[in-house]
Parts: sequence; structure tokens; C-alpha cells
Amino acid sequence: MIILGIDPGYAIVGYGVIYYQSGRFRVLEYGAITTPAGMPLPKRLHRIYEGMEELIRKYKPDALSIEQLFFNTNSTTAIGVAEARGCILLSADMNNIPIYEYTPLQVKQAVTGYGRAEKRQIMQMTTTLLGLTEIPKPDDAADALAVAVCHAHSSGSKMLGYN
Amino acid sequence: MIILGIDPGYAIVGYGVIYYQSGRFRVLEYGAITTPAGMPLPKRLHRIYEGMEELIRKYKPDALSIEQLFFNTNSTTAIGVAEARGCILLSADMNNIPIYEYTPLQVKQAVTGYGRAEKRQIMQMTTTLLGLTEIPKPDDAADALAVAVCHAHSSGSKMLGYN
Repeated sequence: MIILGIDPGYAIVGYGVIYYQSGRFRVLEYGAITTPAGMPLPKRLHRIYEGMEELIRKYKPDALSIEQLFFNTNSTTAIGVAEARGCILLSADMNNIPIYEYTPLQVKQAVTGYGRAEKRQIMQMTTTLLGLTEIPKPDDAADALAVAVCHAHSSGSKMLGYN
Repeated sequence: MIILGIDPGYAIVGYGVIYYQSGRFRVLEYGAITTPAGMPLPKRLHRIYEGMEELIRKYKPDALSIEQLFFNTNSTTAIGVAEARGCILLSADMNNIPIYEYTPLQVKQAVTGYGRAEKRQIMQMTTTLLGLTEIPKPDDAADALAVAVCHAHSSGSKMLGYN
């Protein structure tokens, strides 16, 4: 099973593509889709959408795994992240890829077995699980790999929207 | 100039298409793209995107006019609205349509000349300005027409992202 993990954003979208079978992982690619700060938001969304299309064409993932969003404040950043996330979900659905979403707590538990793990511990554990020699850069890519691992470890996971 | 006004949402996207020239308005169409409550969010986004594509193909608008989003709380609804709005912006940008965004205050002032107008007054004034015989239904369509009128009345308006 090929899983595409995504850490959404409008400046940086972290991604991690993993192959998972019989409890074993192989990392196919990780990195980030980035958009320049001066670019108008609609053009950034467009570029993110195209970046997603490219990843999907290349890897034909069986699942997209993504974190749930939580906002604490009315921030322009949070709105932009949600707008980008909408375009990411759209690209997956247009390509008939099932989408699974997880809370940050679920990601922590799935990766470290412990709900109160620190961000650094999650990254370290993800690195170890995936057999990488060092923590992936940027952080957004490491987060994306963690949510991909979370999906691999979640047997009873639910598709987004089918509650 | 053909202006497509949009009131974003994931259950209902209000739209209003107007033709504006030399201070005169003509309403070409208004209504709503709706998605059923039980439908998973990615599929709703997909349907909204397709509805936008259809409107854009049909009317080839010169501008998309849309309200800025403000969130007060961390609500799932607000996140869903922003996700839908992202897909709406994407559809416009993919079709090279310039996007203009306005605050609710700007819409009030542009339509009624008064920043503290009630929602009902804005709807009534929009109806009168557009030469309609009754307030458009649903409310989302009336709101979309109001933001379209706002763009027509805003000469010095800024394209989204070019601040």
C-alpha cells in the first residue's frame, strides 16, 4: 500500500510518500511544495494543487493521510492553511484517492504509542520506524511522514466524512 | 464587465452573476451550488469546484468578488467554509479570473453607503439596485449579489494578494 502523508500549509506543504506492506516500511520520497511569500494566495493555491497532482500522478497513492485542523484564534494564517487544505483534499478526491484524517493525538499515539510525546520524539520515532539515518527536513516533511505512518498503523481508520 | 459574486460555504455556495456597464446593472443569473449534508467533505469540495467551473464556462466573468473570512472560534464549520473557499479561489485562478475580496464592512458601505446597515437593508438595497422585484432567495445568493455589486461600486479595489 502506498500512502501519501500531507502536512498542509500555504507557504509549505510537507509531503511524505511511503510504501507499507506486512509491517515493513519503505520511504519513496519526501519533501515540500513551497510557494513564495509575495505570491497572491489564489496563485499559491494553484501551485499547491499542481504539486499535489504531480505527486499523485507519480505515485498513484492508495490513500491520502492528513491531520485534522484546529484553530484557536481568528488568524489569517489559519484561514490560509484551511484554504490550502481544501485544495489538497480536492486534488485527492478528483483522483479518486480515499482520504483519511487523524487528530494530532492519534498521530502521536500511532507513532510513539504515547499520547503526550514531544514533537521531537515523534520525529525521532518516525525516522527510526522508516529506517532513515536522520530526521527528515524540513519539519513539514517529517510531520507528513508521521501522519503517513499513523495511517499505516491504524487498521480501523475511518475515511473522512464517513463517520 | 461581468462580475461573479460568491458567498462561500460547503453546504451552500451562493452565487450572483451581474453585468455592469456605465453605472447600470443587469442580473444574468443567481442561485446556489448545494451539497447534501451526508456527503463526505472532499466530495462536497469536488462538487463545489465543478459548479464553479460550470459558472465560469458559462459566463466567462471578468472578475470574481468574494468576502474576506473571519473566524471567531475554532469551529468545524468555519474550517469547512475556508476549505471550500480555497477550492473556489482555485477554480477562478485556474481560469485566469482576477479575484477581489472585500470585508463585510466594505460590502455594506458599497451597497448602502452606510457601514452599520442591517443585513435586511443590504439585501433590500441590492434588490433595488439590481432592479429585481423581490429579494433573491436563498440568502446566500442575495449575499453573493451584494458582494458583486460591491465590486462594481469599488473603483480602487485591490486584487487579492496584491496588497
